[in-house]
Amino acid sequence: MFNSVQETLPREEIEKIQIAGLRKTLKYLKNSNSCLKEKYKHIEPEDIKSLDDLKLLPFTTKDELRDCYPFKHIACDISDCARMHMSSGTTGVPVINAMTRGDIAQWGEIMARCLSCAGLTEKDRIQIMPSFGLFNGGFGFHYGAERLGCFIVPAGAGRSLMQLKLIKELEVTAIGAIASYPARLIEVARESGFDFRETKLRVAILGAETWSDEYRKRIEEEMNVKTFDIIGLTETGGVGLGIDCPARAGIHIWEDHYIVEIIDSETGQPLPEGKEGEMVITTLTREGLPLIRYRTRDISSILSYEKCECGRTHVRVSRIRGRTDDMLKVKGVNFYPSQVEQILLKYKGLSPYYQLVIETVKGKDEMTIIVEKADNGITQKELEHLDLELYDFLGFHSKIQVVPEGTIQRVPGKAVRIVDKRKKI
Amino acid sequence: MFNSVQETLPREEIEKIQIAGLRKTLKYLKNSNSCLKEKYKHIEPEDIKSLDDLKLLPFTTKDELRDCYPFKHIACDISDCARMHMSSGTTGVPVINAMTRGDIAQWGEIMARCLSCAGLTEKDRIQIMPSFGLFNGGFGFHYGAERLGCFIVPAGAGRSLMQLKLIKELEVTAIGAIASYPARLIEVARESGFDFRETKLRVAILGAETWSDEYRKRIEEEMNVKTFDIIGLTETGGVGLGIDCPARAGIHIWEDHYIVEIIDSETGQPLPEGKEGEMVITTLTREGLPLIRYRTRDISSILSYEKCECGRTHVRVSRIRGRTDDMLKVKGVNFYPSQVEQILLKYKGLSPYYQLVIETVKGKDEMTIIVEKADNGITQKELEHLDLELYDFLGFHSKIQVVPEGTIQRVPGKAVRIVDKRKKI
Ligand SMILES: [Zn+2]
Ligand SMILES: [Zn+2]
Repeated sequence: MFNSVQETLPREEIEKIQIAGLRKTLKYLKNSNSCLKEKYKHIEPEDIKSLDDLKLLPFTTKDELRDCYPFKHIACDISDCARMHMSSGTTGVPVINAMTRGDIAQWGEIMARCLSCAGLTEKDRIQIMPSFGLFNGGFGFHYGAERLGCFIVPAGAGRSLMQLKLIKELEVTAIGAIASYPARLIEVARESGFDFRETKLRVAILGAETWSDEYRKRIEEEMNVKTFDIIGLTETGGVGLGIDCPARAGIHIWEDHYIVEIIDSETGQPLPEGKEGEMVITTLTREGLPLIRYRTRDISSILSYEKCECGRTHVRVSRIRGRTDDMLKVKGVNFYPSQVEQILLKYKGLSPYYQLVIETVKGKDEMTIIVEKADNGITQKELEHLDLELYDFLGFHSKIQVVPEGTIQRVPGKAVRIVDKRKKI
Repeated sequence: MFNSVQETLPREEIEKIQIAGLRKTLKYLKNSNSCLKEKYKHIEPEDIKSLDDLKLLPFTTKDELRDCYPFKHIACDISDCARMHMSSGTTGVPVINAMTRGDIAQWGEIMARCLSCAGLTEKDRIQIMPSFGLFNGGFGFHYGAERLGCFIVPAGAGRSLMQLKLIKELEVTAIGAIASYPARLIEVARESGFDFRETKLRVAILGAETWSDEYRKRIEEEMNVKTFDIIGLTETGGVGLGIDCPARAGIHIWEDHYIVEIIDSETGQPLPEGKEGEMVITTLTREGLPLIRYRTRDISSILSYEKCECGRTHVRVSRIRGRTDDMLKVKGVNFYPSQVEQILLKYKGLSPYYQLVIETVKGKDEMTIIVEKADNGITQKELEHLDLELYDFLGFHSKIQVVPEGTIQRVPGKAVRIVDKRKKI
């Protein structure tokens, strides 16, 4: 473990740290430059007596942060900040997170814990494949690897042939990437006769997208690696909020830096262990953008507050199933693309390149699942079975269209899973 | 000044530091992992009595480094290195520079000096436009700005509209970029009605390419900034080897970290002050890739060892005219694209987008200068005058083809100035 003291704190210690951190953050926010401080005018930090009191505080939403563009939500002076990252803004005004030196150190610490949790040490050579820049992925891995003492190959996004060449020639042992990117690497490897078994690669740390267990299994087999699911948002300080561990028993959230809650998206009420809902994050140590009860829109559940097999005591949540934004409602049924992916990828003859196309036909929703074939494709019998499985899960019939490899456009960055042609109301 | 003690050392002090640094580097190399150490087997560091003895040492060439791909030229263990950058490899096998933590600190120091020399302080907001990744540009600016304490907007390459939006909305005061990129920014600004005078931008630090004084003048006028020419190579440790100063009296090379010589490319003999030739760099403080007399292929000249108006005592060299690789030989005449650029851009009606196309017609060289028009274009009379000027400089007639704006492809990264269609021997 990178920080074995902090990562194995007893539950009572964690709670003490969280209450103190929450009070401190509230006090700091109330006296800050943030325009959001008004929300806490009538709240006295010292009135927070237990973690249970957290639920008395108001939520913070992405829309509130967007209204603050560019810097009105930043708690300190911009001249006290060292730099910034920014959400993609593909679905509206972007959110900027300006970071102090303290924030960057905090980020390095939690990312180093994540890399260490994935089995990396200072002996590893990590190739960083998310882009470096406004997107936080590249720099997050960079600072974590620097803190841990790995050798960094700063490849950035794209150029898959070059990525493979470097993995092999530089004897790279680990990669960090956007979750859908390994599918592309595997495809290019196959086209060019590249064999992952002739490399020293053993770990792939993947995030920034929802990815199914079946996809995971396939990546692990084809790349001959162990994968780790890493999570984080621009708003909470970037990638590194949590990661799953070798015990594969959920994603540990670093609780000395964050409080996690799961709430009912509709009612806003906290949900008990095991219940699926929206993840809400409170930051305890962030300075540029401290957040109280930030609604992440990510869907997860609390798995356990008990000590994990890996020795870590920090809470475990389930892998993220999707974002509330990604949730589809077709013919009145709610589901996430990752759930369809999970079913598709049980079939060896189907590839991880798929799209769900939804349109209105004669006033009714119709969904077509376009999926590329892999290997020798899928037999008629398998196709019928898939159809049954999908119907079983969705409760309505969708059209399955198996297309040749390469049909779906390969895009840099996050994959496009949904093409919704329905008229928006 | 970022480091006023070091930047204003008296000449005798600089020489003492250089002799000591040279001896130390030689000794270190001889006992290192580098396969190049064999070259120094019979050289005793203590035999170096004066800087004059430097010329007794053998050169290091890019081809030697290429033969070492990926890591054989690295002096220390890769596990002692924190990361690497890599030359583009567009003209052959790339060269990797693996960096220790000491190297990264050295890089931060010299880049912070460069930014400070360009007038930046911790109050500035710098938008970094070279790509972050294997190319050293992005990270060089990043570490320098971090060291100096600026606020960093890590924009990376491309997305010109977004770049402009950020400059304005985030009140950016300085940019770092590949030298040809401002031409694109100006073009996009014009198309979208963006006015640089409504921003807080005042400094542009440009490098990685040869750019003429006329281009410089145009950028300064149109963007309403002061520009600074920054130099550096992957092999010497990246961008930051030197920069020109507010006195605009040449490029200062940080002599406590590097020794610069100018040599005759043909004979290898050192050239005196004022004579133009190939720049040769010896590193004094680099650990991953220490270099003795590295032939950079960049063409420059020593301007002065005297104290500069700006107060700095470090040697000044002339702005780089081109690389020996870029030198064109057409109809027996040697010249650099930047020299043609310098003539073209005297005409307001011509843009900085140009290409020199050379082909063999009836067994003879023919050169066509394709250049895009700017503003209202160029009159017949001006065209005739340009033709005369070019003939005067080149000594042969070239065809000038003025084409509409947007004809020449906009590429990310370095501009393509030469299209040589002649059969190579
Ligand atoms: Zn665990
Ligand atoms: Zn000067």
